[in-house]
Amino acid sequence: MRIGTAISNGTPTPVVERDGALHALDVAAGSTVADLVAAGGALPAAAAEPLDGATLTAPLRPGKIVAIGLNYMDHVRETGLDKPTAPLVFTKFTTSVIGDGEEVRVDRAITERVDWEVELAAVIGKTATRVSVDDALSHVFGYTVANDISARDVQFADGQWVRGKSLDTFCPLGPVIVTADEIADPQALGLWTRVNGETVQDSNTKEMVFSVAELISFCSHSFTLEPGDVVLTGTPWGCGEFMDPIRSLAAGDRVEVEVEGIGTVANTVVEI
Amino acid sequence: MRIGTAISNGTPTPVVERDGALHALDVAAGSTVADLVAAGGALPAAAAEPLDGATLTAPLRPGKIVAIGLNYMDHVRETGLDKPTAPLVFTKFTTSVIGDGEEVRVDRAITERVDWEVELAAVIGKTATRVSVDDALSHVFGYTVANDISARDVQFADGQWVRGKSLDTFCPLGPVIVTADEIADPQALGLWTRVNGETVQDSNTKEMVFSVAELISFCSHSFTLEPGDVVLTGTPWGCGEFMDPIRSLAAGDRVEVEVEGIGTVANTVVEI
Repeated sequence: MRIGTAISNGTPTPVVERDGALHALDVAAGSTVADLVAAGGALPAAAAEPLDGATLTAPLRPGKIVAIGLNYMDHVRETGLDKPTAPLVFTKFTTSVIGDGEEVRVDRAITERVDWEVELAAVIGKTATRVSVDDALSHVFGYTVANDISARDVQFADGQWVRGKSLDTFCPLGPVIVTADEIADPQALGLWTRVNGETVQDSNTKEMVFSVAELISFCSHSFTLEPGDVVLTGTPWGCGEFMDPIRSLAAGDRVEVEVEGIGTVANTVVEI
Repeated sequence: MRIGTAISNGTPTPVVERDGALHALDVAAGSTVADLVAAGGALPAAAAEPLDGATLTAPLRPGKIVAIGLNYMDHVRETGLDKPTAPLVFTKFTTSVIGDGEEVRVDRAITERVDWEVELAAVIGKTATRVSVDDALSHVFGYTVANDISARDVQFADGQWVRGKSLDTFCPLGPVIVTADEIADPQALGLWTRVNGETVQDSNTKEMVFSVAELISFCSHSFTLEPGDVVLTGTPWGCGEFMDPIRSLAAGDRVEVEVEGIGTVANTVVEI
């Protein structure tokens, strides 16, 4: 199933996407996709008729976002850095999350270098504390797509990456969550970034240094992953920062990130 | 008012603390202190009779924890590093939060160097996006005390601090939130850490490089602070990591952090 959050008459509503149409799930008023994930068990029934005039927003506000640096071999080669011997954990504040079609708002008083990073995102469905690699994927509710937009000047000047990774609107997420049963192998998915139609990232999740299962197991030995947490699994080669000359997103740019079998999140950059 | 969360008959309940007794607030079942903070406005009435057999836990689960490095002049001098020219933002995952009296659980497979850091913590009460320094404190609901417990080996090996700062149980918080109206000047509060009764940190919030108002204003220009977010404002001199020889918390140690006018959070270290 493809689970998302639609805005219908100004109200966010959990929906299932079928054949491109959005069908409301039968939930109590005010319930969110995060509530459904936390509740576990079977998902509620969907309305037979599609919601009129509804548009998708981010499928959920994560409890926390766990992000992983340098997790694609092609990206390791591009940076010239050593292959990591353990996953490198960083994070984005959840206030940075937006949905497909919403604006990436860049404050030029804060950053001049704004980069893209397509990522496969795993949505945690069951609490994970010290889980084994073999058991890790049973804790995944589903998968979605993230654009780990990064203010490179802030990221590198601070040294700690969280601020440069967490500017408001810097985490496009969506378009929906595809439940785990529909992703046969999370390590065999193409993923791409396009800027104004030009492909700038083009790789496959088989290039990951640490698999999704290894990442979840590793993280869960340090901190508990809870239902609704989202693990961003790293980005492949092709970020603007490592191009010569460096490329950066500008006002009016349309940046699209796509993961095979899940979908595309497209956002336009505006300056504020 | 002193607002906290009590466990009474196994259920967390918002309370007010008066003369050492805990009085339940008149809220709907299941409501949390985070809900009260988000609702804004006047707090509900408290029961006249104290709750029998109730004990405090962490006053709230923050939406996010924003932490600040190197923000006390005495700590800057101790580290030998340069005085920061801007606040250095890092974070702890909210899954690390525990309350007064709960165990700090150290997994020796993950860390051998566990340090203390007393901090004044500001609880955000009103959404703050690009607020001025003059206006910043009007966004504070109240103040509490945090122990920013840090796995120094993990923190420094990763380079990104978030994992070493976020091990489960590594953010004791409490004992209660003192509402902002009762803290005349957040820049004139003594703060201390004691380990097994020995004072190891002893300073005053007047030593901050950037005031609470400056921190909130600065952060709000990069990312939105929401009601229920908590800003940890840095720690003074006296961490074990900078002693000669280095000191680290061991099984059985009792670590207490205190901020003047707010209270003390005491936790015992256990190995798992």
